[in-house]
Amino acid sequence: MRIGVDLGGTKIEAIALDEAGRVLARRRVPTPRADYPRTLDAVAELVLALEAEAGEPGTVGVGIPGALSPATGLVKNANATWIVGKPIDRDLALRLGRPVRLANDANCFALSEAVDGAGAGGRVVFGVILGTGCGGGIVVDRRVLTGPNAIAGEWGHNPLPWPDEREWPGPPCHCGKRGCIEQFVSGTGLERDFREVTGRARSAVEVVAHARAGDAAAEAALVRYEGRLARALAGVVNVLDPDVIVLGGGLSNVRRLYDSVPKLWQRWAFSDRVDTRLVPPEHGDASGARGAARLW
Amino acid sequence: MRIGVDLGGTKIEAIALDEAGRVLARRRVPTPRADYPRTLDAVAELVLALEAEAGEPGTVGVGIPGALSPATGLVKNANATWIVGKPIDRDLALRLGRPVRLANDANCFALSEAVDGAGAGGRVVFGVILGTGCGGGIVVDRRVLTGPNAIAGEWGHNPLPWPDEREWPGPPCHCGKRGCIEQFVSGTGLERDFREVTGRARSAVEVVAHARAGDAAAEAALVRYEGRLARALAGVVNVLDPDVIVLGGGLSNVRRLYDSVPKLWQRWAFSDRVDTRLVPPEHGDASGARGAARLW
Repeated sequence: MRIGVDLGGTKIEAIALDEAGRVLARRRVPTPRADYPRTLDAVAELVLALEAEAGEPGTVGVGIPGALSPATGLVKNANATWIVGKPIDRDLALRLGRPVRLANDANCFALSEAVDGAGAGGRVVFGVILGTGCGGGIVVDRRVLTGPNAIAGEWGHNPLPWPDEREWPGPPCHCGKRGCIEQFVSGTGLERDFREVTGRARSAVEVVAHARAGDAAAEAALVRYEGRLARALAGVVNVLDPDVIVLGGGLSNVRRLYDSVPKLWQRWAFSDRVDTRLVPPEHGDASGARGAARLW
Repeated sequence: MRIGVDLGGTKIEAIALDEAGRVLARRRVPTPRADYPRTLDAVAELVLALEAEAGEPGTVGVGIPGALSPATGLVKNANATWIVGKPIDRDLALRLGRPVRLANDANCFALSEAVDGAGAGGRVVFGVILGTGCGGGIVVDRRVLTGPNAIAGEWGHNPLPWPDEREWPGPPCHCGKRGCIEQFVSGTGLERDFREVTGRARSAVEVVAHARAGDAAAEAALVRYEGRLARALAGVVNVLDPDVIVLGGGLSNVRRLYDSVPKLWQRWAFSDRVDTRLVPPEHGDASGARGAARLW
């Protein structure tokens, strides 16, 4: 049995899969925010609860909103700041009495969708999270690319490609640079853009709903968003040329993206036609935990 | 025996390797420019000559300055315009009476360096050609990534990341866009930059030599070049996070790049430290043909 844990900033989700990928058990608890020992406890308790429910022991993989630095073995790049700098795999292994594998949560998402989800069959799968932030992960031959800096797939902190006058040099990003892709294609980025243009504060969900209902300002924001997402993804196509790009996160629910973006990215790709598939996730919110289970 | 052919715009180089990668025979002829049938003849004659010299038949792989479109099976994106739109693998197979494998020349370079060259041991190797143009190839687990559009590694037609006021939106590129990386980090790009700033025409080789001899204008151009190459490669590190980046082409002979660029890219990478290795090629000019031989 494989247990996967998706350790998020607000909730922890755990899933137990059999070898065929069927769900044997599943649980979710709120994340003990800003409390590292209690976060470890919560993960360990979920694992033990799933094992009790399924009646057998399992391997344990954990997806985190950050990465383990290959150089130091400590968590880095995590927006869940209370786990940064911690040896979380070793601490979890101590609590659980067995080795624990860790990966970035977007990498887990990409792995899940590549192995038995929307990207299955592609040699190279690029998984993208369009949520509060903007993550990404690359899977080649059903194995996650990690890289010597543990940042494979972190496209969100490259600058938005082919910016126009209003987009360049772009807004400052928490990473210390300006004009990052994340500042444009995350849900937060959509909200910022709408607010800057209209002077009104709306959530990303509201902007999408209002656009669907015919609101002109919301529609215009969504059109800008589509163009930016298309350019950002074309920049990845030009480097990685993945077989499949699977969108995840809240904005992956905007169905029109799967039609509009492949029409728009053609102009920016170094190819007379673009045969990359852009698809919604098959396992939805469960992909993070499913992919963590696939780390073994 | 494996035969690899590097079909370039000015010369065709062919090499015969045994299974251990030792060179059994090697030949070079000028490319019959702008003459497709004679280009095919020249490749076939080289293959047969190597076989006669080595005394045994071989598999045949060919690197081309372009790619085979997966959709049409025809050459695309080639600056050797007289092969564009041709079914060159099928035409060569007819002349040689056996199947022929084709790949982009930068992909062949990356494969050669990944298998038994400067990138050996890395799971993910990014090979970069800094020559007249700017190519690239990605090898994962000793296999070339091609992609559904046959453009994996074509980083040169993304825009230069983090451009400053003098670099944005950048010069027009033959691909139809502006500000492409190729326009800055190719030898041609170095020449253009030097000419624009100084009003004097110098070859890339001259700019490098004059900088070494203490010429201030040439030195300044080379410093700008280093900064741009560092930013362009940081953009690849942020997406692909390769274990090793191997430089090829004429500008890979500029030794200071291997010291200066890894110091400069730190600022742009999404990581508190960058442990990517930047290395010169081990097989030099022979890498293209060696990698083509490795397509089998």
